[in-house]
Amino acid sequence: MNRLERALEELRKRKVSTGIVLKPQNIYYLTGFYPSAFAALLLEDNPRLLVSPMDGKRSEGSNVEVEVVKNFRRRLKQIKGKRVGIEKGYANYEFYERYLKGRQVANLGFLEDMRKVKEKEELKRIKKAARIAEQVMGKVAERLTQAESEKELAAYAGYLLEREADAAFDVIIASGENSAIPHHTPKAVPLEPSSIIVDLGARFEHYASDITRSFSLAESKAFQEIYEAVLEAQRAAIEHCVAGSLVREVDNAAREVLREYRLEKYFLHSTGHGLGLEVHEAPTLSMHGKEELREGMVVTVEPGVYREIGVRIEDMVLIGKKPKLITSFRK
Amino acid sequence: MNRLERALEELRKRKVSTGIVLKPQNIYYLTGFYPSAFAALLLEDNPRLLVSPMDGKRSEGSNVEVEVVKNFRRRLKQIKGKRVGIEKGYANYEFYERYLKGRQVANLGFLEDMRKVKEKEELKRIKKAARIAEQVMGKVAERLTQAESEKELAAYAGYLLEREADAAFDVIIASGENSAIPHHTPKAVPLEPSSIIVDLGARFEHYASDITRSFSLAESKAFQEIYEAVLEAQRAAIEHCVAGSLVREVDNAAREVLREYRLEKYFLHSTGHGLGLEVHEAPTLSMHGKEELREGMVVTVEPGVYREIGVRIEDMVLIGKKPKLITSFRK
Repeated sequence: MNRLERALEELRKRKVSTGIVLKPQNIYYLTGFYPSAFAALLLEDNPRLLVSPMDGKRSEGSNVEVEVVKNFRRRLKQIKGKRVGIEKGYANYEFYERYLKGRQVANLGFLEDMRKVKEKEELKRIKKAARIAEQVMGKVAERLTQAESEKELAAYAGYLLEREADAAFDVIIASGENSAIPHHTPKAVPLEPSSIIVDLGARFEHYASDITRSFSLAESKAFQEIYEAVLEAQRAAIEHCVAGSLVREVDNAAREVLREYRLEKYFLHSTGHGLGLEVHEAPTLSMHGKEELREGMVVTVEPGVYREIGVRIEDMVLIGKKPKLITSFRK
Repeated sequence: MNRLERALEELRKRKVSTGIVLKPQNIYYLTGFYPSAFAALLLEDNPRLLVSPMDGKRSEGSNVEVEVVKNFRRRLKQIKGKRVGIEKGYANYEFYERYLKGRQVANLGFLEDMRKVKEKEELKRIKKAARIAEQVMGKVAERLTQAESEKELAAYAGYLLEREADAAFDVIIASGENSAIPHHTPKAVPLEPSSIIVDLGARFEHYASDITRSFSLAESKAFQEIYEAVLEAQRAAIEHCVAGSLVREVDNAAREVLREYRLEKYFLHSTGHGLGLEVHEAPTLSMHGKEELREGMVVTVEPGVYREIGVRIEDMVLIGKKPKLITSFRK
């Protein structure tokens, strides 16, 4: 059964007459077509892909029947059924109010579940995206001493990613006290040598990678101590990235190491996240999450400490009987 | 009255006890803080900004009280009130189901209305973003004959944008038959000289610009004919970009010129869109839109023809008693 058939099967089980898929990543996952404008995949006995005239040409060759729609509002009003499925975490309230109010609304969340365990072809692309990210990281590391500013270096890293593939997200270059801000926006300021966080990812044929390295160009004891604690926390978390672990066990492993170093309260986010068609997707490696890891999932493991300076180390791991690193440990 | 006070006033008029603002651009517009992770601005008698621990440092200095929230689910459950406002076009169905089901839901759409007419400080940033985009366009034009590929040229343009400011969106470089695809993704193929569309924009201090130029490096009669028709259509549309025009009048002006050239059916999108904190925001210059343009709005005017080859010309216009070009006509 292909993905589309499996999705239809899930709908039948849930007694949903029509599923309306709006999220571009899910449309791509099921049809092989990645919309560039508003589009809707109708999951029914005869699935149909509704696309904007702007995507008319681009959608030729998708694996379902395509209908070019000039007036989406009128077209979506025609959808029948007492029980209709939507991506509850994606479709907005207006969509519900306009087209579905008064009907039963089921969730198409199972699409995100389907995407968790990666197929061989998906893994190939993820690994390729990871290779590109590592190469760019290498070039960024070489240029640290000559970089004009955080901003210029981030622009340069973005250029390298875009030239080879695509940038999966805006490159983060955060130095000195800026490194203590997890989502720092690179500024037109010289690199402060005490700590430099570089967080970047490539997107190759729609699949993302995401890695972070932390560098110090100074002899900084503070950096060295935090770095070693974070690295130890990361290794401990990776140990738990095996089929059958609960996500919270991975998170707790990292947190426990940082607790020993009295650094736990400076760890401001979860230990990691799934990635694939999205940079952040299920499962989240969170403190209280009870989800079980399964063979074939891909996650990041990225503990960080944000104090006077910040350190974060992020690698990608393929879940199996043993943890399989997709990116490597070294700085 | 500042923006926040005006928003609270709108809520009172609508008898809404609490407005929950989730859209980052709206949060920024009202508070001066641009969240990097999930955040919620509670519009109540004492407005509060709920931010993730990751944004704790970044949100210092915003103009409202900030509350760092570890558990958003628990915090949002505490919101009281029979009638609550959300951005219906932004908040997802899950948010509604989880926190608001059974209550009256009002729309905070007036926030997008507030943003339509730009203030002086906003215009300054938009103009600066436009200048940067024009400069980069100039450099891209100079490099057309040496570019390795669509993809490499797009990466180069992105680098220039990121170095100066930010790229407002992924640069489009589309040549030859690819230029006939409005949302083409640049490919690793040499530039086909018959027609080359370059669509790019900068983001400066959160405000976007968006311009498109079409070039031909060949002596192409087809290109020349389409180009002149599109340019004439654009000029006609711009004439109507004055306070008091309806958006459909602008769109129809462009469409009518293309009709005379029998090219109307190859024009696959609306004539333009507002821009500011978002690249695409209200108002849309659409075929049937009845909204009236007002002094201080900023829109793009971008007719295009997508046939064997494509041509699109896009400039930014400030609405006034007369149309004021923010970007200039020349190729």
